Amino acid sequence: MTKKNIITMEHGAGGQVMQGLISKSILGNISNRSAGTVGLDDLDDGATIALPADFNSSYEIVITTDSHVVKPLFFPGGDIGKLAVCGTVNDLTVMGARPVALTCAIVVSEGFEREILEEIIQSMDLTAKEARVAIVTGDTKTIPRNELDSIIINTSGIGFAPRIIRDNGLSPEDMIILTGTIGDHGISLLSHREGFNFNTKLESDVSPLNDLLEKSLQITTHDGRSAITAMKDPTRGGLSASINEMTQKSNVGVILEEEDIPIKSAVRSACEMLGLDPYEIANEGKAIMGVRPEYADEVLELLHSHKYGKDAAIIGKVVAEHQGKVLLRTPIGSLRQLNMPVGDPIPRVC
Amino acid sequence: MTKKNIITMEHGAGGQVMQGLISKSILGNISNRSAGTVGLDDLDDGATIALPADFNSSYEIVITTDSHVVKPLFFPGGDIGKLAVCGTVNDLTVMGARPVALTCAIVVSEGFEREILEEIIQSMDLTAKEARVAIVTGDTKTIPRNELDSIIINTSGIGFAPRIIRDNGLSPEDMIILTGTIGDHGISLLSHREGFNFNTKLESDVSPLNDLLEKSLQITTHDGRSAITAMKDPTRGGLSASINEMTQKSNVGVILEEEDIPIKSAVRSACEMLGLDPYEIANEGKAIMGVRPEYADEVLELLHSHKYGKDAAIIGKVVAEHQGKVLLRTPIGSLRQLNMPVGDPIPRVC
Ligand SMILES: Nc1ncnc2c1ncn2[C@@H]1O[C@H](COP(=O)(O)OP(=O)(O)OP(=O)(O)O)[C@@H](O)[C@H]1O
Ligand SMILES: Nc1ncnc2c1ncn2[C@@H]1O[C@H](COP(=O)(O)OP(=O)(O)OP(=O)(O)O)[C@@H](O)[C@H]1O
Ligand SMILES: [Mg+2]
Ligand SMILES: [Mg+2]
Ligand SMILES: [Mg+2]
Ligand SMILES: [Mg+2]
Ligand SMILES: [Mg+2]
Ligand SMILES: [Mg+2]
Repeated sequence: MTKKNIITMEHGAGGQVMQGLISKSILGNISNRSAGTVGLDDLDDGATIALPADFNSSYEIVITTDSHVVKPLFFPGGDIGKLAVCGTVNDLTVMGARPVALTCAIVVSEGFEREILEEIIQSMDLTAKEARVAIVTGDTKTIPRNELDSIIINTSGIGFAPRIIRDNGLSPEDMIILTGTIGDHGISLLSHREGFNFNTKLESDVSPLNDLLEKSLQITTHDGRSAITAMKDPTRGGLSASINEMTQKSNVGVILEEEDIPIKSAVRSACEMLGLDPYEIANEGKAIMGVRPEYADEVLELLHSHKYGKDAAIIGKVVAEHQGKVLLRTPIGSLRQLNMPVGDPIPRVC
Repeated sequence: MTKKNIITMEHGAGGQVMQGLISKSILGNISNRSAGTVGLDDLDDGATIALPADFNSSYEIVITTDSHVVKPLFFPGGDIGKLAVCGTVNDLTVMGARPVALTCAIVVSEGFEREILEEIIQSMDLTAKEARVAIVTGDTKTIPRNELDSIIINTSGIGFAPRIIRDNGLSPEDMIILTGTIGDHGISLLSHREGFNFNTKLESDVSPLNDLLEKSLQITTHDGRSAITAMKDPTRGGLSASINEMTQKSNVGVILEEEDIPIKSAVRSACEMLGLDPYEIANEGKAIMGVRPEYADEVLELLHSHKYGKDAAIIGKVVAEHQGKVLLRTPIGSLRQLNMPVGDPIPRVC
């Protein structure tokens, strides 16, 4: 390994050396570099976003941010770059927005291999292309290796939403739809990290959900309200944290049918073995939503027709009783409360 | 110190413990919490930005991002929180945008004192209030203390611009205006960090520049073009990096009058003593701009009337010759080239 391929403090120092890193290793690996007049190639203090042609004052701009500290950087089914793009695309999507542009802020330790940095940027690029978002501006800082021994990526994103979807909009009778199996991300990451071998190939579900959800987000009632009443992406804290938050904020109760919650058998057995609750495990390619009952079948069909929604299922419904509580009906018919988790049982998942 | 006041891994784990930290230590300390329908209090997957009342399709949305790894966290004149807000407010401002909303993404090490975290948030809040921006969404991640021993704050921001100011818009005859003294931030940080004692009180210039520049940004020619032709905030790499970048991108030459560049004598003597070039030292409360000659006096007067622009000065002008080069006329009248710095001589300044 030559010195040239290692990050040094000067790569974060705002001069020629940083410019070289940014133009070669970053810009050189990103395809969608503009969403308005000023984009990534302009290397200005920021970037601009052009308003969409169909923009009108009833639209809102949605903004979100996530920093990613996942460990290890590469894992079955993805890496920190893919995760950083998907995380932000998905937070925009579950708010009802069409993702338009992302920022890319990197903090990297001195001594980090430049080739690995480029691999990560290439993965961000691939994912951004899939999600049809541009990466329009960024920042690069370096830290001495005795103070940070890896890379941290923050992506912020903006999108345009004709109808904002909140996480507090559940109403009694709404159906609860989950777009696929739970626990894949957290369990595959943990297994890979700890060197567990479950004899089954398990991969992270990390994927951008905007295409999967696009058509469902367009379904409206005759008076223009969205068929989807509330939505979240069940990341840290898993399904449990998300559905509890939605339920509490909406002042309703939710009853989930345990038998209908899609879980891969590898995830189920890993959880049993490790004493983990699959409902608390992070997902990075799933959405949980409330849907007005008359549209539930239509949404389900749309989800099933997409590669990321093959395992989508109606997993429960909203009730007026049990306010603020999520109840789980077990296969033998009894009800138990699904509590808001204290934390996420697996650290460093995103 | 009780356990309660220390950050643990669960503070970044997406469950009840993280919720407690966010609602008490973060939301509890931030005043401007909304810029649209969904704001910080809603703790949704992101936030929304309402379009301004005077919004029309000729406006553009500006977006920017910066991560902050400054060391130490508290320094004369500021701290990482103030820096994080100013950095993003200033990048929006120098692009011609009115800053509207910021995100706040924190990566903090296990073992970090919660009281210090709150002090930092309070400082972000004070600065956001001064700059009239809301902090509307965020993210909190924790890292084991053996892998990070401090706090990293990313702020991304969006603003609305009636007229985008680029960094490539310099034209021959434009005056180069600097809004105040250079080097204060880098030198005061270094002195504090290394325990130097220069017998003079020197403070960082970290401040939000949107109010200072608001009126100047509104000056337009009769055909609606901005009186300011190009602008940057001379952060890492200092005045030297910024003016070189503007000059190169604009395909012009720039001649600066060394005698007219405002530098505090404490900064000048510290630089002499330490063998540092003051033009390469980072600033966090200054802007460097090209101004159409007929508006230079008006802009200068506006700057002088504001507390952050007292030392503003015309420091040079744009010429058609010497393309891509910045030349410095020394007090004895000779010209020397001011080169694009290789890096920033002082690490971890922002
Ligand atoms: N990781 C990155 N990904 C994409 N673009 C980047 C990245 N790092 C920097 N850039 C781009 O490079 C240019 C220079 O970045 P830089 O961070 O120096 O600008 P700045 O924020 O104005 O300065 P400072 O960070 O010193 O305040 C900007 O246009 C920025 O968008
Ligand atoms: N440092 C912070 N400052 C301001 N708001 C924050 C901060 N950290 C989190 N929040 C807010 O708390 C809520 C929960 O944050 P969280 O990061 O869990 O959401 P998420 O991004 O949807 O989930 P994940 O990070 O697991 O993908 C969000 O509304 C977020 O804006
Ligand atoms: Mg800048
Ligand atoms: Mg998220
Ligand atoms: Mg930057
Ligand atoms: Mg989310
Ligand atoms: Mg900046
Ligand atoms: Mg988050």
